[in-house]
Amino acid sequence: MTNTMGNIFKVSTFGSSHGKAIGALIDGCPANLELNEKDIQKELDLRRPGTSSITTSRHELDKVEILSGIFEGKTDGTPILALVFNKDNKSKDYSSLKNTPRPAHGDYTWKTKFGNYDYNGGGRGSGRVTIGHVIGGAIALKILEKFNIKIISHVTQVGDIKAKKVGLDYIESNTLKNSVRTADLNAAKEMEKLILGLKAKGDSVGGVVETIAIGVPPGVGNPIFEKLDGEIAKALMNIGSVKGVELGFGFDLAKDTASKTNDEFYIEGNLNSNYINPNFKYAPLHYGHSNLGSNDLGSNGKHQNKYEEKAILATTNTSGGILGGISNGMPIVTKIAVKPTPSISLSQNTVDLEKMENTAIEIKGRHDPCICPRITAVSKSVLAIVILDGMLRGGFIPLDNLNNLIF
Amino acid sequence: MTNTMGNIFKVSTFGSSHGKAIGALIDGCPANLELNEKDIQKELDLRRPGTSSITTSRHELDKVEILSGIFEGKTDGTPILALVFNKDNKSKDYSSLKNTPRPAHGDYTWKTKFGNYDYNGGGRGSGRVTIGHVIGGAIALKILEKFNIKIISHVTQVGDIKAKKVGLDYIESNTLKNSVRTADLNAAKEMEKLILGLKAKGDSVGGVVETIAIGVPPGVGNPIFEKLDGEIAKALMNIGSVKGVELGFGFDLAKDTASKTNDEFYIEGNLNSNYINPNFKYAPLHYGHSNLGSNDLGSNGKHQNKYEEKAILATTNTSGGILGGISNGMPIVTKIAVKPTPSISLSQNTVDLEKMENTAIEIKGRHDPCICPRITAVSKSVLAIVILDGMLRGGFIPLDNLNNLIF
Amino acid sequence: MTNTMGNIFKVSTFGSSHGKAIGALIDGCPANLELNEKDIQKELDLRRPGTSSITTSRHELDKVEILSGIFEGKTDGTPILALVFNKDNKSKDYSSLKNTPRPAHGDYTWKTKFGNYDYNGGGRGSGRVTIGHVIGGAIALKILEKFNIKIISHVTQVGDIKAKKVGLDYIESNTLKNSVRTADLNAAKEMEKLILGLKAKGDSVGGVVETIAIGVPPGVGNPIFEKLDGEIAKALMNIGSVKGVELGFGFDLAKDTASKTNDEFYIEGNLNSNYINPNFKYAPLHYGHSNLGSNDLGSNGKHQNKYEEKAILATTNTSGGILGGISNGMPIVTKIAVKPTPSISLSQNTVDLEKMENTAIEIKGRHDPCICPRITAVSKSVLAIVILDGMLRGGFIPLDNLNNLIF
Amino acid sequence: MTNTMGNIFKVSTFGSSHGKAIGALIDGCPANLELNEKDIQKELDLRRPGTSSITTSRHELDKVEILSGIFEGKTDGTPILALVFNKDNKSKDYSSLKNTPRPAHGDYTWKTKFGNYDYNGGGRGSGRVTIGHVIGGAIALKILEKFNIKIISHVTQVGDIKAKKVGLDYIESNTLKNSVRTADLNAAKEMEKLILGLKAKGDSVGGVVETIAIGVPPGVGNPIFEKLDGEIAKALMNIGSVKGVELGFGFDLAKDTASKTNDEFYIEGNLNSNYINPNFKYAPLHYGHSNLGSNDLGSNGKHQNKYEEKAILATTNTSGGILGGISNGMPIVTKIAVKPTPSISLSQNTVDLEKMENTAIEIKGRHDPCICPRITAVSKSVLAIVILDGMLRGGFIPLDNLNNLIF
Repeated sequence: MTNTMGNIFKVSTFGSSHGKAIGALIDGCPANLELNEKDIQKELDLRRPGTSSITTSRHELDKVEILSGIFEGKTDGTPILALVFNKDNKSKDYSSLKNTPRPAHGDYTWKTKFGNYDYNGGGRGSGRVTIGHVIGGAIALKILEKFNIKIISHVTQVGDIKAKKVGLDYIESNTLKNSVRTADLNAAKEMEKLILGLKAKGDSVGGVVETIAIGVPPGVGNPIFEKLDGEIAKALMNIGSVKGVELGFGFDLAKDTASKTNDEFYIEGNLNSNYINPNFKYAPLHYGHSNLGSNDLGSNGKHQNKYEEKAILATTNTSGGILGGISNGMPIVTKIAVKPTPSISLSQNTVDLEKMENTAIEIKGRHDPCICPRITAVSKSVLAIVILDGMLRGGFIPLDNLNNLIF
Repeated sequence: MTNTMGNIFKVSTFGSSHGKAIGALIDGCPANLELNEKDIQKELDLRRPGTSSITTSRHELDKVEILSGIFEGKTDGTPILALVFNKDNKSKDYSSLKNTPRPAHGDYTWKTKFGNYDYNGGGRGSGRVTIGHVIGGAIALKILEKFNIKIISHVTQVGDIKAKKVGLDYIESNTLKNSVRTADLNAAKEMEKLILGLKAKGDSVGGVVETIAIGVPPGVGNPIFEKLDGEIAKALMNIGSVKGVELGFGFDLAKDTASKTNDEFYIEGNLNSNYINPNFKYAPLHYGHSNLGSNDLGSNGKHQNKYEEKAILATTNTSGGILGGISNGMPIVTKIAVKPTPSISLSQNTVDLEKMENTAIEIKGRHDPCICPRITAVSKSVLAIVILDGMLRGGFIPLDNLNNLIF
Repeated sequence: MTNTMGNIFKVSTFGSSHGKAIGALIDGCPANLELNEKDIQKELDLRRPGTSSITTSRHELDKVEILSGIFEGKTDGTPILALVFNKDNKSKDYSSLKNTPRPAHGDYTWKTKFGNYDYNGGGRGSGRVTIGHVIGGAIALKILEKFNIKIISHVTQVGDIKAKKVGLDYIESNTLKNSVRTADLNAAKEMEKLILGLKAKGDSVGGVVETIAIGVPPGVGNPIFEKLDGEIAKALMNIGSVKGVELGFGFDLAKDTASKTNDEFYIEGNLNSNYINPNFKYAPLHYGHSNLGSNDLGSNGKHQNKYEEKAILATTNTSGGILGGISNGMPIVTKIAVKPTPSISLSQNTVDLEKMENTAIEIKGRHDPCICPRITAVSKSVLAIVILDGMLRGGFIPLDNLNNLIF
Repeated sequence: MTNTMGNIFKVSTFGSSHGKAIGALIDGCPANLELNEKDIQKELDLRRPGTSSITTSRHELDKVEILSGIFEGKTDGTPILALVFNKDNKSKDYSSLKNTPRPAHGDYTWKTKFGNYDYNGGGRGSGRVTIGHVIGGAIALKILEKFNIKIISHVTQVGDIKAKKVGLDYIESNTLKNSVRTADLNAAKEMEKLILGLKAKGDSVGGVVETIAIGVPPGVGNPIFEKLDGEIAKALMNIGSVKGVELGFGFDLAKDTASKTNDEFYIEGNLNSNYINPNFKYAPLHYGHSNLGSNDLGSNGKHQNKYEEKAILATTNTSGGILGGISNGMPIVTKIAVKPTPSISLSQNTVDLEKMENTAIEIKGRHDPCICPRITAVSKSVLAIVILDGMLRGGFIPLDNLNNLIF
C-alpha cells in the first residue's frame, strides 16, 4: 500500500500542501476507545509551524475534523476519517517552480514518476503531509497510554552541536520548555543561536532526533522480515528529510567489541522497576508468563511464584530494546539523521525541464531553518503507530474491541 | 507477512540453523528468466563461511537445490522453491544454552514470544537464515543484470579503522581480492590484523558495510509509505546484527547546511555517461520520457529531440540517489552499522530462565570474529530484492514474462 | 485490509448510514486520468434511491466532492479522497433498534464483534456504504473505458420470474429503460408487479443480477490464490445481501457432462470480431504476442504475420471467460444471488440484548422491496475495480502514469 | 500474494504436476501445536487418487515430509515447509499437448500469460496443486479441533442426481462409507452408476459439494472487504473446477421473500446446545460477553448472570451462519458448483498454437470421471484455513503461542 502504513492498525494518508484537504483514514483501530478532535489536535499543535522564531512563520491553524468512525464518543471499529481543510492554499504563486525542480527536493523525481505533479508548495512531497502521520499517531498514542506505554522525542543534535546525555525523566520535563525541543537547556541556547544565524543568511541546518518508547513488553516484533527494528527503520526513513536511522547505539556499535557492548541479562526482583509495565505483568516471560512451557503453570492453573515475583532485564541497553527483531522489555531507543531543510533562499543551480537547459533558482518564502524541533512530533507519531501495530499483531492489545480485556 | 519480503517479487524464507533444510520460496518472479542452481550457488558461495582465517572455521558447503518453478531451464511464472539441506546439524550439543539466553542474541526474546524455541545454533535467529536472503537475491541480481543494473557491496570500516574513499571501479575490482572485502587494500591489512587479534582473545568487533546500486532509472519508489529509502532501510535493518542504516551521506548531513549539501541538477549531454542506463533511455524523463506531458511527443508519436539527446543528473550525490522517496537516476548508496558478533568465548552474565537466577556463560565454538565480510553478500542480496521489487511495481520490468519487453 | 479492496488499485471506504460523511479513498490510481465530480456522480446516480416506485422513497441526493488527488483536472498519482456528506442523518429515531437486532441484518454480529455499534440505519452495515464502492468503481470504469473495456449489469430474475436470455447489445440498450433494470421488457412488467405487490404487504423479494465485462484481454488473473474468478467471487460476495456467486454457467455446469460443456477453441481470422479488443492487439498471444517464445519475433523485432492476422477464441463460453483463474479473452460473465431485503414491516421474532429475553419487532420506514435494480450499479463497480486491479498487476495498463503507453 | 492464501495464517503453495516436488510453506502458525507428518498425511490420503473405481487409477502415494518449523515435536512459530516429492513424474509423454491447449483447461491462458508453460499433466494448473491446500488445511484443522471446531464436507449432487437433505450427525457418519462421499447412501449408488457409465464413454460429469463448519463463535469476519463470506467465496472459487459458490440457501434465496426466509433470533437457555462451543463461552456476546458494554460486568469483574446462562441463536439458518460478513455462531454452510472434469478421451476441437490452425485432440490417460469426491478434502481444507485465519485475526486464538490461553 503505497500510502498506507501498518498491517493491523492501518494509517492511510492523503492530501497535498495546497489541495483542498489533508489527513488520514485509520482502519483497524479497536472499538471502544474514547476519541474526539481534541485528542488529535493536541498532537497536531506540536507539529504546527509558527510557534517560535526558529520555525517557519507561516500561519497554519490545522484544525482537525473527524468525519467517520466514532459513535457515541467512542471508536466503533469502523474506519476513522480525520482531516484538516487547507485554509491558506491560494496565497502564493509557485509557477516559477513548475519547470525548475528545487535541489534536494522531490520535485524532479515526482514529476518523472507521475508526469502530472502539483508543484505548489511541494504538493504531496511537502512536509505538510505529516499532518496525516500525526493524526494516526495521536490515536495510537492514546491507546498506548491506556496500556502504560509512553513515547518521547527530543532533539539531540543541531549542526555540530550535540546535547549532553540525560535521563528519561529529564527529557520528559525539559523538552517542551525550549523552542529547539532539546532536553539540554544549555545546548538549546547554542542551537537556537546557530539556527537563527543560518536563517539570517537564508541557509538551513540538519540535526538528530531521538525517539524513545518506554513500557513496551517483551515479545513484540515478527522476525524475520517484519522485525520490530525493520518496521521502525522503514517508518522513520519514510519521513521526509530523514537520511539515517539508528537503533540503540547504532553506528557506535560498529566501532566496538562484543565484550564491551553486549547487554547482559539479570534477574530483577523489584516489579516496580520503571522498566516493567504493570499492564503486562501476566503477559510474556518477562513478567512470569507461561511461555517457558505449560509446566510453568501451577496445579491451579495459575502462574508459579518463581515467575510472578521476578522479571528479566538487561544491565545496559546498547541494543535499544530490540534483540532478534523482538522487543526485550527495555526502552526502545531510536535516532534519526535529519538533513538540512532543502528550501533555502540562496541561489542554487538546477535545470529547466521544459527547455532542457541549465538554470538557477532562489527559493523565496518562509521556511524552517531547522526542521528538527517540529519533526519530534512526527517521529513520536510514527513510532507509536509501529509499536501499536506490532502489539495488536502479537495479541497484546485486544484486536476488535478494547473492552475485550484479555488479562 | 512475517517471513516474506517484497510486494511483487516476494521472497519467503524458512528453516533454522540446525533444522533439516533452509531456503526460500520466491513468488512473483517473471517467467522466461534462464535460471539454474549455479546462478544461486555463485552468490551463496560469497556468504559461505570457512573461506578465510577471519571467518568462522565451520565447514558448510551449502549446496542449493531448486525444487520447483523452472521449466525447460527457465522460470515459468510459478513459485521457485530453492533450499539447502543442513548437513552438519547434529554436530554439537547446545543443551547448555537451553535456559541461559546468550547476551545480545535473540534467544531470550524468541523464547518469550513463541514459548517453544530451537536454541540449537540460534535456531531461526541464526545468521544461517540469510541463506534464504541470498537465494532470493541471486535471482533478483540475475534479472537486474539483464537490465544493466549492478549492485556492489564492500566493507568500509572495521572497529575504528576506516577505509579510504575510492571510486566505483576501484571497489568492484578490489573488494573480492582480500578476506575483509574492503576496497582499500592497505586498510584491509590493518583490519585483518585487528580481527585476528580479537579472535585470539575470544572477542569480536563490528564494522560498516556500504552497498551501492548503479543504473537504477529515475522513478522507482512509491511515496509516501513505500518510499524506496523506507523499503531499503527496512530490508537492511532486518538483517541480523544491523543497528543502523544510512542513505547517501546519512548522519553526516545532520551536521551540515543545505547550501553545502543540496545536490544540484544539471543537463548531461553525453548519454554514454556511466550514470545513464541504456536500457531505460526511452523510459522516464531522465532520458527524454513523455512524463513531462503528452505534448512532448512529436507529431509522429516519437519523443522530441530535446529529450532524446540529453539527460538530467546531479553534480553531487549526498542524497544517495533518492529524493522524495523516488530514485533520481544517480547511484543508490547505503551504509549499515554492523554490531560485533555477539557470540564470544569470554564469560558473560546472563540468567537461568528455569531457575530464574543470575548465572554466567562462555559460548564455545567457532564464530565469526567480524561478520562484515560475509554480510556484504547479504546486503547485496536484499538491496537487489528491494530494487527489483520496486522496478516491477513501477512497470520498469515486465511483470509476468520477461519476454514481454515493453520498450 | 478490512476496509480496502484491490492490490494495486486500492479502494478504501469509510462512513456509515447516519455518520457525517461516507465515501472512499483511492490509492494506486495512475496519474493523468482526467477526472472530476461528474464522472463519479454519473455512477452514483445509478445507485441512488428514490428514482422509481420500486425503490425506497428516501430522498438522498448523494452529491460527491473530491478533496484530494487531482491536479489541473487530472489525477496526479496521489490518493483520491471523494465523499458524500450525509444530509438527512438526523431524521429518524432508531433507538427502538438499539437492543433488538433485526433478523437477517448484521446488527447482532456487528454488536457482538465491536461492542460499540451504530444502530442508526444499520450503521456501517447499511447498504449506504456502497456509495464507497461506486466511487471507486466510477474511477475504474473511466480507465477501463479508455482501453475499450465495457461492463454491463442487469437483473435476470426477481423472485421466481426469470428474464429471457438476450444478446449483449440488447442488454445495453434496454436495461436502463425500465425501473427493474432487466433487459427483457416483458419480464420487467411482471417483475415490477410482483415487487409492488410485496411492497404493499410490507414484504420484500430477492433476485439475480448478471454483470458482464467485455473486452478484457487474455492473461489477466494470478493463479493460484489470486485467480481472477477468486477475486471476483470475493468482491461480489462482499456486497451486502449477496449469498451466491456464479461464473459462466455456474451451478448449471454441476448437472452436465464435459462433452457437452467444454468450450472449444478456434482460430478467428477477423480481428474486428466483437470479442477482440483493438487496444490489446499487440498484447498476449491471443492477438499474436511473443509469449509463444522469442522465435515468434521476426528478424526485425516485429511480430510475425501468422500471429498478427489471427486470434484464438472459443465457440461457447460456459466458463464465463476465465480458465485456470486467468481471463481467456471471452466476455467475463458473473451472476449473483441477492436475498430479499431483510427490512420488512411485518412482525418478526428477535431478542432483547439488554434483557436477554425473546421479543418481536416491526421495522417501520421506507425500504427497497427489491434491492436488485440498485445493486446493478454496485456489482458493475466492484467488477470494474477487480478487473482494473488485475490488469494493472499484469502490466496491461501503465502503473504510475497513463501517459506511459507501453504498446 | 499470488500463491499465498491467508492474512495471519498464510499458506503459500508451490510445485506442479510433474516437477520435482509439490507442497506448501505455512507462515503464521502459532507455536506449541503438536504436529507431525501423520497429522498431514491423514488429510492427504483423503484427496489421494486411486482409492476407488470412480477416481483416476493413477497411483500416487503422496508421502509428505516436513522440512522446517517443528522443534521437539511442536511448531515453534517459524515457517513450516512440508512437501511431497513427485515420484511418477517421468511416466508419460505429454508433448502432443505442447501446442494444442485442452478445452476448458488453463493450458491456453497460462501459456498466454507466462509464455513458458509446463504442459506436462497441466503443470501448476493441475489439480495436483491441491496437495498444497490440503497440507495447509491439515494444520488448520488440527488447531480448530483443539478449539472444538469441526469441518465436514460431502457431495450433495452428481449430474442431475441430488442427495436428500440429512442432519449433521448423519453426514459425519456416512460420508466416508461410500466412494462418492455423499451422506445419502441410496443416492450414492445411483451417482456411482452414473459416473461409471460416463467413465466408460470417456466422458465426465460435474456435481455439488457442501462444506460446513460447526462451532465457529460469533464475531469472526472483518467487514466490509474482508467479510467472512467474501473470504470463503474467494477461497472456494480459487479451487480448480469450481464455478459457483453459495452461502446458506444461496440462489434459492433469490426466489423467495424476506418474511419466509429471514432467520429469527431467540434466547437459548441450554448452553449444552450443539451450536454453542464451550471453548468460547466467555467469549463474545453469544455466550455472555462484555461486548454489550462494561456495565455488563459485575462488581467483581465477572460477567453477570444474565449473560452467563443464556445464549442467542437463530431458529433457522438460511444465511449459512454469516450476517453482515461476520459469523453469528450458527453452522457456516457453503456449497460449490464443480464443473465436469475437462479431461475427456472423446475428440474435441482446439487450435494449434504454433501453426495457428484449427485442429482436434483426444486426451488419453486416466482421469477422474467426477472430481467431487476428492474435492471434499480440498474444500474442507480451504474452509479450515479461512476460518482459522479469521479467528486469529479476531483474537479468538492466541496469535504467536497456543499456550497463551487468553480465557
